[in-house]
Amino acid sequence: MKRVFIIIGNKARTSEFSLNDLPGAGRMDVICRFIAQSLLVSHGVRKDSTAIAVLLGGPQKSLKFKGDSIKYMSPDERNVAGLIRKALKAKATDEWLEGSPGVYVSRKGIGEILDELEGYRILYLREDGEDFHKVAEERDYAFVLGDHLGVSENMEDEILKRADGVVSVSPISLQADQCVVILHNILDRFSIRGGCRV
Amino acid sequence: MKRVFIIIGNKARTSEFSLNDLPGAGRMDVICRFIAQSLLVSHGVRKDSTAIAVLLGGPQKSLKFKGDSIKYMSPDERNVAGLIRKALKAKATDEWLEGSPGVYVSRKGIGEILDELEGYRILYLREDGEDFHKVAEERDYAFVLGDHLGVSENMEDEILKRADGVVSVSPISLQADQCVVILHNILDRFSIRGGCRV
Repeated sequence: MKRVFIIIGNKARTSEFSLNDLPGAGRMDVICRFIAQSLLVSHGVRKDSTAIAVLLGGPQKSLKFKGDSIKYMSPDERNVAGLIRKALKAKATDEWLEGSPGVYVSRKGIGEILDELEGYRILYLREDGEDFHKVAEERDYAFVLGDHLGVSENMEDEILKRADGVVSVSPISLQADQCVVILHNILDRFSIRGGCRV
Repeated sequence: MKRVFIIIGNKARTSEFSLNDLPGAGRMDVICRFIAQSLLVSHGVRKDSTAIAVLLGGPQKSLKFKGDSIKYMSPDERNVAGLIRKALKAKATDEWLEGSPGVYVSRKGIGEILDELEGYRILYLREDGEDFHKVAEERDYAFVLGDHLGVSENMEDEILKRADGVVSVSPISLQADQCVVILHNILDRFSIRGGCRV
């Protein structure tokens, strides 16, 4: 089962930023944790997982981190931020261009990104969504999440037009990376132990 | 329901370290993420949660972060590391001394720390443990986890002597902070929605 995790970084800087102040770069720390939690487990990478960050703090750029080919990524925020900074230095075009192993950049928007995900069940994470613990199935999923500011109304329309459903994972409001950890856990239990729905 | 999360930082530095190289400080980044995930949710702090880090990279020091009184903590690693660095500057004694709001330091070892947790069900996290999704109850819990190096045999004996059980949360090997996110989710669902065991 393949998994794609997409975050909307409402103010995440698409130009140069300092590794010493990730929160000041439009909460780049949120994006770093999201990417790390999407791809990493203890002492390893999830080969079947991809993280995509749509960065809107400046001329829009989107970054894609692919677990099957990423190299040199460790879980600390500063390391992930270094990979992001390097990727942002490349020219963003209409296509995905690989800047470093497993890391791609483009100027695609959320609509185009979702349109590429053929065969995936696209789910939008929102607190009032259906409990994903109860509806998870053995299949390929793409999840779309907002950062600490959520998702703008326009962008939410773009997402909902393409989404197969709206789900939640917790009765309380969590950070995006925490949602990713729980989504992985639900699917890990489902796929490895078999039929672990609540 | 109160929750305590304890991590053993096998090499985490108890002397001065650089905020620009947390992995180089005995994987202090692991400790930072653990503390943040124990205490923080979206835009808020879990008042009922406490994080304790037993740091063994140097003369032993233990740090306690209490959700009911912590201030000035944001989820990025560098911010948590700043709080740790400040706490480590205080003299560690046999008692818990509050260095900054909600942050305590002592030279207590894991045995003493667990002995203080009267009324808590103490659980040790290990991959071969019982599935916590299936056995969670509505009560106060203290969870003990290793860092990326696990827990030494001697220390594990200390823990098991006092633990009420050994549990796991995932069929695959996860990072300590990922386990914390899942433990919270299990208990959140159990306490708020009622009876959500798998």
